[in-house]
Amino acid sequence: MVDIPNDHPRAESLRVRHAIIDGMHSKIVAEAGLIAHGRGEAYDYLIGEKTHDFAIDAIDAAAAMLYLAKHPVLSVNGNTAVLCPEDMIKFSNKTRIPLEINLFYRSDERMNAITEVMKKYNANLILGNNSEYYEEIDEISSLRRVVDKRGIYSADVVFVPLEDGDRTIGLKKNNKKVITVDLNPLSRTSQQADITIVDNIIRVFPLLLKSFDSIDGRSDAEAILSRYDNNKILKSAMEKITSYFKDKL
Amino acid sequence: MVDIPNDHPRAESLRVRHAIIDGMHSKIVAEAGLIAHGRGEAYDYLIGEKTHDFAIDAIDAAAAMLYLAKHPVLSVNGNTAVLCPEDMIKFSNKTRIPLEINLFYRSDERMNAITEVMKKYNANLILGNNSEYYEEIDEISSLRRVVDKRGIYSADVVFVPLEDGDRTIGLKKNNKKVITVDLNPLSRTSQQADITIVDNIIRVFPLLLKSFDSIDGRSDAEAILSRYDNNKILKSAMEKITSYFKDKL
Repeated sequence: MVDIPNDHPRAESLRVRHAIIDGMHSKIVAEAGLIAHGRGEAYDYLIGEKTHDFAIDAIDAAAAMLYLAKHPVLSVNGNTAVLCPEDMIKFSNKTRIPLEINLFYRSDERMNAITEVMKKYNANLILGNNSEYYEEIDEISSLRRVVDKRGIYSADVVFVPLEDGDRTIGLKKNNKKVITVDLNPLSRTSQQADITIVDNIIRVFPLLLKSFDSIDGRSDAEAILSRYDNNKILKSAMEKITSYFKDKL
Repeated sequence: MVDIPNDHPRAESLRVRHAIIDGMHSKIVAEAGLIAHGRGEAYDYLIGEKTHDFAIDAIDAAAAMLYLAKHPVLSVNGNTAVLCPEDMIKFSNKTRIPLEINLFYRSDERMNAITEVMKKYNANLILGNNSEYYEEIDEISSLRRVVDKRGIYSADVVFVPLEDGDRTIGLKKNNKKVITVDLNPLSRTSQQADITIVDNIIRVFPLLLKSFDSIDGRSDAEAILSRYDNNKILKSAMEKITSYFKDKL
């Protein structure tokens, strides 16, 4: 880990950046995951690196959708395993929603490295890493199509943060509801998902857990979901970015 | 090199992405250079991945400033050595403006790997890689401070693409004119440079050479420079990004 002075104007961003690089060294993060992280940094910068109302509303809807789901699953990739393992696993353990490792740049080495992270933080429910349960989703062309029979394959709601557009479209074709966390409101994933949380994944899980805990039964969750309009949320996020630039003009 | 189908909607972007990853394997590109490339991808996306008028005007001014300079230098880092070695070296050889390798994540291994790229494309004037000529610029805190006595140390104009803010500020404190290529019009580098080309470096060098070739003597170059207003250019770039989002609303 590189030593970063606390008074550096970009100290927090640099610390996260080096955690991602260390994650690549330990095979958790794919090499292309570093480039993806850079894209995320750029978009996070454009929303002032903070959680806005449009993200809060999407988080509340996501909590409600996960609450009401018959068979929800949280998809895990290398970047999430480095960026927020503790908060993600805490959410999974408390809500009993399983975590499924599902990778674009899939290899046994990476599956194992990510499984180790999950175990280190005491994850109770880990799917995706046992070949006995492998199934394929034909509508996904990448290795993302290899899923767990007990997890994404039979899920009605899939939480897929830091996503590629192809998978979101493939999951939708299989009549699954998709919740995503994506800092670019214009990405194919953001546009295709049922619920798009435009925020940094680092900030999302504690808020998601708080929101989940505050749900007052099924009718409350249904009311939250019925009020929710993802297109409106995406427009708010774009307006925020637009106004960020306008303020600098 | 990964095989990417030509009909993929992001084929060109994916090809460049994999060239950067290959560059990391051959030690040309720093690991953090992958993250920086991701940031660039995000901002390039926001300007529609094409060269706009605000970049053309900045390129014309940059050509004029390099033309008029007593002692101009082109600074080279790992990402530029992967993204546009041929065009950059062609520009250097034709204009006799030397290339100086100057790295944030500096190591002998990387200096040598980049020197090899320069030689492969027949660069005539390579500086920065001979310890006999090392000098330091005190105002730069990173290893970027190690410069070549015959190059950046004595330069009046430095062309520093894909830059960190600290170096730009350090060079300015040493009364050097700074030309940069930076896709984020709000970065410290963009804001501090004398001329900011908001464009993808891949597209810049052929246009810079064309502009340099078309200069009709010193008085023409002086006229181009006297008309140029970098603040106006930065505002145009921000307006472009703002309108990109507005059009999607």
